[in-house]
Formats: sequence, structure tokens, C-alpha cells
Amino acid sequence: MTPEEETTVKCQRAKQAAAQLAYLSSQTKNQALLAMADQLIERQQFLLEANSADVKAAQEQKASEAMVDRLLLSEKRIDAMSEGLREVAQLPDPVGEIIAGWKRPNGLEIKKVRVPLGVVGIIYESRPDVTVDAAGLCLKAGNAVVLRGGSEAINSNIALAKIISRAATQAGVPEGTIEIIETTDRAAAQQLMRLNSLVDVLIPRGGAGLIQSVIENATVPVIETGLGNCHIFVDASADLAMAEEIVINAKCQRPAVCNAVETLLVDESVASKFLPSMIKRLSSEGVEVRGCAKTARLISGVKEAAEEDWETEYLALILAVKVVADLKEAIAHITQYGTKHSEAIITQDYPNAQEFVERIDAAAVFVNASTRFTDGNQFGLGAEIGISTQKLHARGPMGLEELTSYKYVVAGSGQVRE
Amino acid sequence: MTPEEETTVKCQRAKQAAAQLAYLSSQTKNQALLAMADQLIERQQFLLEANSADVKAAQEQKASEAMVDRLLLSEKRIDAMSEGLREVAQLPDPVGEIIAGWKRPNGLEIKKVRVPLGVVGIIYESRPDVTVDAAGLCLKAGNAVVLRGGSEAINSNIALAKIISRAATQAGVPEGTIEIIETTDRAAAQQLMRLNSLVDVLIPRGGAGLIQSVIENATVPVIETGLGNCHIFVDASADLAMAEEIVINAKCQRPAVCNAVETLLVDESVASKFLPSMIKRLSSEGVEVRGCAKTARLISGVKEAAEEDWETEYLALILAVKVVADLKEAIAHITQYGTKHSEAIITQDYPNAQEFVERIDAAAVFVNASTRFTDGNQFGLGAEIGISTQKLHARGPMGLEELTSYKYVVAGSGQVRE
Repeated sequence: MTPEEETTVKCQRAKQAAAQLAYLSSQTKNQALLAMADQLIERQQFLLEANSADVKAAQEQKASEAMVDRLLLSEKRIDAMSEGLREVAQLPDPVGEIIAGWKRPNGLEIKKVRVPLGVVGIIYESRPDVTVDAAGLCLKAGNAVVLRGGSEAINSNIALAKIISRAATQAGVPEGTIEIIETTDRAAAQQLMRLNSLVDVLIPRGGAGLIQSVIENATVPVIETGLGNCHIFVDASADLAMAEEIVINAKCQRPAVCNAVETLLVDESVASKFLPSMIKRLSSEGVEVRGCAKTARLISGVKEAAEEDWETEYLALILAVKVVADLKEAIAHITQYGTKHSEAIITQDYPNAQEFVERIDAAAVFVNASTRFTDGNQFGLGAEIGISTQKLHARGPMGLEELTSYKYVVAGSGQVRE
Repeated sequence: MTPEEETTVKCQRAKQAAAQLAYLSSQTKNQALLAMADQLIERQQFLLEANSADVKAAQEQKASEAMVDRLLLSEKRIDAMSEGLREVAQLPDPVGEIIAGWKRPNGLEIKKVRVPLGVVGIIYESRPDVTVDAAGLCLKAGNAVVLRGGSEAINSNIALAKIISRAATQAGVPEGTIEIIETTDRAAAQQLMRLNSLVDVLIPRGGAGLIQSVIENATVPVIETGLGNCHIFVDASADLAMAEEIVINAKCQRPAVCNAVETLLVDESVASKFLPSMIKRLSSEGVEVRGCAKTARLISGVKEAAEEDWETEYLALILAVKVVADLKEAIAHITQYGTKHSEAIITQDYPNAQEFVERIDAAAVFVNASTRFTDGNQFGLGAEIGISTQKLHARGPMGLEELTSYKYVVAGSGQVRE
């Protein structure tokens, strides 16, 4: 079988499964999720062995420590995946919800009913837990999933998919619900991106290169996720102590994620009061600051930022800092350089808060809170398959509802159109 | 300026306009729509002259009568476009609606607020009224629009866009809100499909070739519209008189549109009772019937259908007819050949109606009503920009709400993530 054929066959199986999954009972889906959770624990040893092959290969190829850490499975991480599936089982089933309904003057009753998307393709990198998370969320929302993980985690991904797929079918879910592409040939991924007749949506999860490649090559509809060049603007009226805590949290609590802050904008009128202690605190937390000319003049020893610093999602303990004339310049800077992910203003001024919220075009706009809250769990959606940075279909954290579509059901008694 | 440059410049202008349009008052948008409506009437003579150039060119190229008719503007048609804009002005403004809102345990208040999509690209063919319809709906939903019409209607489209764009800006809408690409060079359309940094969504409106080309070439998110290979299934328990009226309506009332029926499926047990009079009636209405072998055996003189007939969207007075064993075979046939647009069952049997509604995967599923009702106005959405046949973002008739996205607005008092 060629890589293209493998992809096609697996997508066909997924499509057949999806037709039945659309009306599978919540009970069966939940039982399957619990069985999957149990089997991950049961087959822990098998998983750790498969994973050690990936880890060994990465080490032989002199992968970075961070990379090896992302690959690594442990008892604790397997427990967390298993627990994640149990949590998804507890969430309400989105399928079948009547989103809206009304009656027309001619007597037609129109209902808008939530249905699954169908077949969801996931193209992802390194972290093997995506295999389990994505499969669990897709199943709960009534979708079949076709997984295409990175070559660096292929042994772990195949082992995980094998275990959860078998557990699911034994619990009464149709064969084909969880499919994984086993070849690491690029041609298989290319094929997945172009099977419009079999795949309803593609969700890429990974770095900028992966996402760009999917957008460039896919004819299947894509939900763009994850790139976050996020800003915090400290307004003239800000509570500066609050601002400092929020900046430290947004930069340092977990710097490698998309909702971490990458550029700090400070109103000129408070720059000399705010920046010296802010930058001292950042330095003491190990953050490298790259400042605009004004920042560099205020604080000696600060490295000067280049144009590309305003564009960069560092995903590391680096922060660009810029002094701006006012709210207007802050909004213009964010509009120019932002990736429409998460943007925050720290202010005590009501009209400024309103203007920021209204004029900033991003998935999540915060007033007096850390950008790190852009997250399915933190928003209360229960779990997330990714964070959309496009405007079509879903924006921001995507939970179970965002993995569904709807159909119109129209009940008549012989109506014809005049 | 090259075609690519023209497209880029116009999309840049649209993007700048979109940033302001996002928070323009409903009042200003409505005044602009009314001014556009007035100016179409006022400048009628200018429009008719521009249109006559297109009509003349089409006649010289020996275009079909149907094609020339689609191109043609008349006083009556200009009145209808103007009236359409007035109706859009009357519709509620979708922007700013708080779709949902809740408070988190840590005190964060999360609101999901409806916002415009941003810049909408429309790629369309022949009918110049799309220019006005699309611009009106996009403006009302706070979007800038970049129009790319077919070469056959280019003079009409440019004249229409000029008039409504000027009227809109004079009424206080930002310059760039309504942009039209004037070159008919294909490179301009190709560029529009790939300007991800400037265009938020593309909506193709036209035939299968146009839509396929956009899906193949676009990197900008696309909403697929309009292809409808629609079915009516006459169940064993159907009220046969009702079935006959619905089939005639769905085939004959306007055969050239996407929600017209293309294949009639009939349960074997009522075929001999139903089909003779049904086919006689169809013939008397000028419909050519292409039947399966069983149909041909029942009714002499019926042309036998080929495999491709089950796949064809005729958009004409032709109907494929197939006798099926039961509901199950009907569902399987629709699943195999349908385009997920509009599907109907005629039945008096409650479980069969339920099963059809549950198992058919289409934008609109009808019980005892004509497929012709899949339409924004008929559904009560007020107006429509197209009928989506994909599952992402919107499905079925797309009105003003479907031309919007949302953002999360999060209000805090210093919250940081643990």
C-alpha cells in the first residue's frame, strides 16, 4: 500500500464510522471513553516500551532536552491522559441539542439541531498526549478522527491509538472511529489535506511551520490554531502593582505556550515609574528584555529591540518592551503585529477599557487579567482541542461544541413554495 | 498596476475599512444602505447603459438565452435590488450581540460577543445583482467586501459597485468598505484566494467549476456554497397526492436553482400506484424523466437512466427516478450521491420520518415539504448570501449572523493563573 492509499483507506473507514457515530447514544460513547481510560492504565508497560523507542531515537539524533521532554511518557503522564478521558466522559454530550427552533407563517416548523462535524483530521507534532486528547474529544462530539502525528513520536502514537481504538470498539463504538496513519511519509499527510470527499475539517496542532504548511496545501477546510504573539498594554491609569503581577504571570508561569505574553506596551506617562522595577523583577525571574529606544534610555543595560522582535512569538523567557504615546498607539501596534490570539489592557480607566475591548480584534481581549487564561479549562468549556486564531467557525478555545456543526430539520404537512 | 497589485491594494483598503466598520453604529450602516438604495434608482440610466455593453458582448459571443437573461438588468430588476437593500436596512444588526456570558470561580467575567468577520471576498459569475446583495449584507454585518465578478458582467458590476460605494461613503461609511476588482485577469482572482493576511473568508457563488476552482486554489478560508443534488423519497406510507404536489413544486417551480429536486426515489410497494400518474403529470409539465430499470418496466417510453444521472445536478426540467426497496436503500442512495444540500421524505409513518431525519446528513432535511424551502427568506433569516454545503462555520442558508464571528471579552480585577 502506498502512503496515499493508506490515508485514503483510513479516511474511508472513518467516514463509514462517522455515519453511525452521528446517532450513537451518549451512554455508549461515555462507556467507550471510560474503557479507553482503563486500558491506558492497564497497558501502561506496553506504552512505556513503545515510548522508549521514540525517546532513544530522539536522543541519538541529539534532540534538545525540551524536545525529549515533550516526547516522554511516564506513569504520571499516562495517568493524566487517562484522567482526561474520564473528564470528557463527564461533560454533557453536545450532539442533538436543539440550538434554535421556530414556526413559519405557512406552518413549517424549523429546528436547528446540533450534529457532529463528521470526520476530523488532526495533524500534530511531538506530544503523544494529543493522540488521546483529540480522539477522546472527537468521539464525545460524535466525530471519527484520523490522526497524523509527527515521526518523532510515531511509536508512542501508534501504541496509544491501538489501545484506545480497541477499547472503544469493544465498548460498542463503530470500527474506524479512531484511525491513525502509521507511515511517516509526507505523501500521506499531503493526501489527508486533499481528501475533501472524506474529511470534513483539518485541525493542525503544532508550530508555525506545521500550521503554515497545512494552510498552504489543504483543500479540506482548516481551523488555524495556536500562534500567539500576545501583548499586555499598561495604560496611564493602571494599578502598577497589579500590572507587574500580571506581566510576571503572563510571561513566566509557562513561557512555551501560545497564550504567554511576548510584548509589553507601556504608556509613556508611567514608563519611568513602572519600567525600572518591572524590568528588575523580570531579570530576577530570568527573563531577557528587548526594549525600544525609550526603554533602553530609561534602563541601562537593556538590549535594544529590532523590528523583528515585535513580530516574534518567542515561546521562551524573552520579552519585548515598547513605550507608546497613548492607548491609540498601543492599539495600532497590536493591530499591526498581533496574531489575533490574546491581548490585555491593564487600566483603571473605564472609557479606555471600553475602547481597547471594542477596537482590538483578537480571539480573547482581557481587562486586568493575565493572557494565560485563554484556555478551554480556564474558560469553563471543560477541555479543548486547540485555540482557533481564525474567525471562521470557531474563535479562541475550542471545546466540544466547536467540534460540531448543525442541520436544519423542517417538518411540514404538504407545504409547497408559491 | 498588475492584476495582483490591484487585488492587493483593494484588499488593503478593505482591511483598513473593516477595522472601523467593526464598531460603526447601526444607524450609520442603515443610512448608508438606504442611500445606496436611492442611488440605484437615481442612476438607473447609467446602469442600463453599462449593462447594455455586457449584453451586447454576450450576444456577439452567441451566449445562450438563459445566460443573456441572467446578465440583463431592467428597471424592474434595479427596483428589486434597491428594495433588497431597504429590507436589509430593516433587519436587526447582528454585531455586538452578547451570545453568551458567565462568571468563573476566580471572579473573571467572560462574555462571548458577536463581531464582524472582517474582510469578505466574493467570487461570482454572471448575475450582476450579486454585486448589490453581497455588498448590502456584508455592510450590515460590519464587514468590508472585495467583489470579483465574472468578465461577462464586468461593466454592469463596476457601474453598480461605483454607485453603491460612493453612496455608502457619503453616508459616513469608511472608504474601502465596498471594493471591486476591475481587471478580469485570472491572476487577480488567484491573488484574492491567497491573501490570508488581508482576507478573512471567501464565498464563491456560481457553478460547480467556479466553486471547485476556489476550493482547489484558495489558502484563505472558504465557505462552499450551492451545489444541490437534492432528492425526494416517497415512502410506502406517503400521502401520494401530497407527494405528487411536492415533487411538481420541487422540480418545476424554478428548476435552475440549487434547491430544486434532481432525483425522485420511490418505495417499491407504492411504485406501481404512484409512478404512472406522477410521470404523466411531469411530462405534461415538460419534464424529461430518466428512470431506473424498474421505472422503465412500469412506464413505457421512459428513457433509462445511466449511472451519471444519479450524480447530476441538472438545474433543468429533467428528473431521475429510482424505485428502491425501502427506507434503508433510499438513505443509502442519498448518502452515496447527495451533496448534503436539501433532502426530503414524504411519509405518514412516524418512525420512518424520525429515521430519515436522523440519518440523512444534509444542510436541510424535510418531512412532507418541498426542498425549495431551503432559502434565507423562506427560513425567516431575512436575506441570504448563499447556501453553505459544508459543515464548518455555517450550514444551509447564510444570513447576517453567518457573516459574523465572535470574540471573548474577559473582565478581571488582577487575576493571574495559578
